[in-house]
Amino acid sequence: MNLFGRLLTLVEPNYPDWFIREQDPERLIFFSDAVFAIAITLLVIDIGVPEVPATQPNAMLAEELLALLPQFVSFGLSFLAIGTFWLTHHRLFTYIESCSRRLLSLNLLFLLFVSLVPFSSALLGRYSGRRLVVIWYACHMAIAGMMLLGIWYYTTEIKDLVQPAIDTRAVQYIGRRVGAVPMVFIVSIGISFLSIRLAEASWLLLIPIHPLISLSGFDHPRRERQ
Amino acid sequence: MNLFGRLLTLVEPNYPDWFIREQDPERLIFFSDAVFAIAITLLVIDIGVPEVPATQPNAMLAEELLALLPQFVSFGLSFLAIGTFWLTHHRLFTYIESCSRRLLSLNLLFLLFVSLVPFSSALLGRYSGRRLVVIWYACHMAIAGMMLLGIWYYTTEIKDLVQPAIDTRAVQYIGRRVGAVPMVFIVSIGISFLSIRLAEASWLLLIPIHPLISLSGFDHPRRERQ
Amino acid sequence: MNLFGRLLTLVEPNYPDWFIREQDPERLIFFSDAVFAIAITLLVIDIGVPEVPATQPNAMLAEELLALLPQFVSFGLSFLAIGTFWLTHHRLFTYIESCSRRLLSLNLLFLLFVSLVPFSSALLGRYSGRRLVVIWYACHMAIAGMMLLGIWYYTTEIKDLVQPAIDTRAVQYIGRRVGAVPMVFIVSIGISFLSIRLAEASWLLLIPIHPLISLSGFDHPRRERQ
Amino acid sequence: MNLFGRLLTLVEPNYPDWFIREQDPERLIFFSDAVFAIAITLLVIDIGVPEVPATQPNAMLAEELLALLPQFVSFGLSFLAIGTFWLTHHRLFTYIESCSRRLLSLNLLFLLFVSLVPFSSALLGRYSGRRLVVIWYACHMAIAGMMLLGIWYYTTEIKDLVQPAIDTRAVQYIGRRVGAVPMVFIVSIGISFLSIRLAEASWLLLIPIHPLISLSGFDHPRRERQ
Repeated sequence: MNLFGRLLTLVEPNYPDWFIREQDPERLIFFSDAVFAIAITLLVIDIGVPEVPATQPNAMLAEELLALLPQFVSFGLSFLAIGTFWLTHHRLFTYIESCSRRLLSLNLLFLLFVSLVPFSSALLGRYSGRRLVVIWYACHMAIAGMMLLGIWYYTTEIKDLVQPAIDTRAVQYIGRRVGAVPMVFIVSIGISFLSIRLAEASWLLLIPIHPLISLSGFDHPRRERQ
Repeated sequence: MNLFGRLLTLVEPNYPDWFIREQDPERLIFFSDAVFAIAITLLVIDIGVPEVPATQPNAMLAEELLALLPQFVSFGLSFLAIGTFWLTHHRLFTYIESCSRRLLSLNLLFLLFVSLVPFSSALLGRYSGRRLVVIWYACHMAIAGMMLLGIWYYTTEIKDLVQPAIDTRAVQYIGRRVGAVPMVFIVSIGISFLSIRLAEASWLLLIPIHPLISLSGFDHPRRERQ
Repeated sequence: MNLFGRLLTLVEPNYPDWFIREQDPERLIFFSDAVFAIAITLLVIDIGVPEVPATQPNAMLAEELLALLPQFVSFGLSFLAIGTFWLTHHRLFTYIESCSRRLLSLNLLFLLFVSLVPFSSALLGRYSGRRLVVIWYACHMAIAGMMLLGIWYYTTEIKDLVQPAIDTRAVQYIGRRVGAVPMVFIVSIGISFLSIRLAEASWLLLIPIHPLISLSGFDHPRRERQ
Repeated sequence: MNLFGRLLTLVEPNYPDWFIREQDPERLIFFSDAVFAIAITLLVIDIGVPEVPATQPNAMLAEELLALLPQFVSFGLSFLAIGTFWLTHHRLFTYIESCSRRLLSLNLLFLLFVSLVPFSSALLGRYSGRRLVVIWYACHMAIAGMMLLGIWYYTTEIKDLVQPAIDTRAVQYIGRRVGAVPMVFIVSIGISFLSIRLAEASWLLLIPIHPLISLSGFDHPRRERQ
């Protein structure tokens, strides 16, 4: 158990027998889903309806709608990011069977970053061509993705909260899938120094990334679980 | 399996035995319901409270409230549209028993259009008399409706994710019910070139459409399922 | 079965055997709860944070906060109203066991009025002293309450969707409890012609109304259920 | 049973046999979770995207983002507060097994304060250096925390709605955990007269408070349950 593991189990007291109870993660899942759903639906609020006087022709309204394109792109990208986080969370919690208070707190910390997405998304829609904003957005998503990886690490390596029957190869493989998402965003920070547009475009890798990992990854289980 | 079917199963890798798992669509349903509920409740935000100085009589306030009529009509129509999508989704997922990752993604894509409804609804409330906006709204709803049809097609024809006991006639009949909703919106685009108001009024067909299909459709099962 | 009942069952086709299915109202309950929760939480959006320059003393900020009192009162009243609707809905659906498509539609119509509460609440907060607004608010809540009564009537008298073991006295007694809520609002419309403030105050009757009905009502079951 | 207990059971009628029913708190939990999730996700709305003209350099945008720091701090603190309430609520309802109408009402009152958090959070973000606002915020959170303590008291002491097997020491210990949260806020009101910043910083005690109580509290069960 390395430093990160030690940190996670710090000040965890020895609970007496009458207190410890294995908990079903059902309510954690429910609460997370609600936060995901609200964050993903609040994204639309940033796309304001354009104001065109009644005397102006349709052509001008069409132009104004086209001018909303950066907002729609930002909406789409953030929908994709939250959607990917949700799919990953969904995947992890088909394996996680029980729930400690530490896991609840870790998950809350992850949700803090999910609930902040509408802000970063609005920032990206307003200033999509600026490197500063692209890096901000990529860092935000990379941190959120790393939190999910931390949850997977905590539930499989630190505490044994997953199904006993889970295969070592599945643990590793899922870890790679979870880690691929923040990796895309971290790499895009580097790309942003070459081209800002290319960095934004690279986020679309989230769409094929999981099937790609599946295609490449199944034949090379790297180590057995101890 | 036609082109659409091929597209849907593209790059679907052969998962090894230790990975495949049938999943319960419960969490998908839950998440979808939350998005439906938030989108339908956010519609009200677009109806702003009128500003009338305290010295003005009630008559002026009443006038201002009447001036909100287009917003209320747009609210009502979008409530009807999302409500119809919810009822249809509800219907489909009483038959769908298991859940693949592809289905999760398809459903997310459908929810993207649901979560955008508050924008199109606000647009319609602000510019209800313009053909451009009526066509935008009709296209938006038609696409969302087609996504549901795609989900039904995917779960019954491409993958067998529905209950084994489901009758072929039920599959066809439900398909017709699902398809009727985008059909109403597609036809209304044509109507909008005759009369914009008539196109908007035609959307009210969503209210009786399902009972009408039931009355007409039960006696003519067209083909047996292979 | 009277006119209202006939209307409710109009154009209900004879579904073939392969189509009819008793449905669990679980998803209806879930969706309703989400709409209740969102509507009740959106109420807070109407209470805007006051703007006081940094150079002004605390006393001025305190004054501005006090000036928000009508908004807080309106928030509290609307919270009470939605809370009462939720409690009533909760009560009804402990008895309702199965679910028809008609019931889904009726429930959606009820939720339309629930989702509109934030608008009427903001209106009341902005114009609390005006009779027009008090009547608007009372009508809105009375209609929503009547919808719940309609749901109870539909599930017990038109269709038999409640638990078979339910006592006739319970059906009547719950009907009176459900009906008491819109009654309070209807009576308050009359009161508003005497005093607007008294009409608003009368809505606080929602707090003790259910215990009061319980105290008065248990000894007089009026008729047996046929 | 003291005064508070008497007050809580006042005007609770003797329900006849055909009416009383033990209820599962599932729907209460669900509704509460939805309110928690919405309140916690609405916090982000108060962080407005800064407006910087397109001609200005990135440095100015960075400055504007830094100027949002008080809003982010307020967001973080309110996320922590609602998160702590959620964890506590979660803990209580692993023990609470059944549900009375009174409990539903108490819980609704608690949720009223939860749903108001976005307002107080925005107030704190806008006026973080003012004692008036710090006291307002601390009072708000203290009241919400006391409501949770009231729920625990009601379900364990007034009515027996918890699991029969629950240990007396667990009842007391959980009571101390629940009570610690409002205690932090009450003490911070005193601290605010020494230093406003210190009072705000003291709220961070919410993070380690529960493990600290666990470390100190397990060996001294103070009294046996009667």
